[in-house]
Amino acid sequence: MSKVNLTEKFSLFDDIWSPKLVGELNENYVKLAKGLGELDWHSHDNEDEFFLVVSGHLDIHFRDAVIALDPGEFYIVPKGVEHRPVASEETEIMLIEPKETLHTGSSQTEQTVAIEDQTWI
Amino acid sequence: MSKVNLTEKFSLFDDIWSPKLVGELNENYVKLAKGLGELDWHSHDNEDEFFLVVSGHLDIHFRDAVIALDPGEFYIVPKGVEHRPVASEETEIMLIEPKETLHTGSSQTEQTVAIEDQTWI
Repeated sequence: MSKVNLTEKFSLFDDIWSPKLVGELNENYVKLAKGLGELDWHSHDNEDEFFLVVSGHLDIHFRDAVIALDPGEFYIVPKGVEHRPVASEETEIMLIEPKETLHTGSSQTEQTVAIEDQTWI
Repeated sequence: MSKVNLTEKFSLFDDIWSPKLVGELNENYVKLAKGLGELDWHSHDNEDEFFLVVSGHLDIHFRDAVIALDPGEFYIVPKGVEHRPVASEETEIMLIEPKETLHTGSSQTEQTVAIEDQTWI
């Protein structure tokens, strides 16, 4: 693989809540996504999900709390925990999660991007 | 877990080439390390290793190439590939690798930090 420059990769797409693949390690994918507004409530039964905010601001809502992430901050959502990402401004996010992770977990919604539609950039 | 602020975590330690644990996901650890000078040549038989440069500059030497990483750039060293990280200035690095990954792989050197000595911060 080549090295990945995050700024360069984020310049290649504009769609929202639509993860792009930029790396793979140990059966996980590294993905980049832009967030704006809300993604639907969901959980992943068997996969922890790593969120690092690169720019903007991300609030990860849980049923009993909100984790607020600014650039340079990350949070790992444990497997099985319901969450809803909310971005009040356009936000650049690096995600790491197992290859089999479904975009919106066990919830299929209009926002869901199928694994096979998550393309490499 | 709480969220992790990278700047805050890097302020908590000064030792060089000595990874600290800051997160775990899917049988991998997220680690922070400061680099300066060279770490010994080594490889990891079964583990891919993710390097993201947060500040400074990291050259990852391979037997036939060098990958130069500035802040906001990452590279994934594939399993089994010999490499030597070199930092010409103090450099902050976020690593992600399987929990069983040995610091300097199959090479045991004076620089090696045993897994049980890689502490949480």
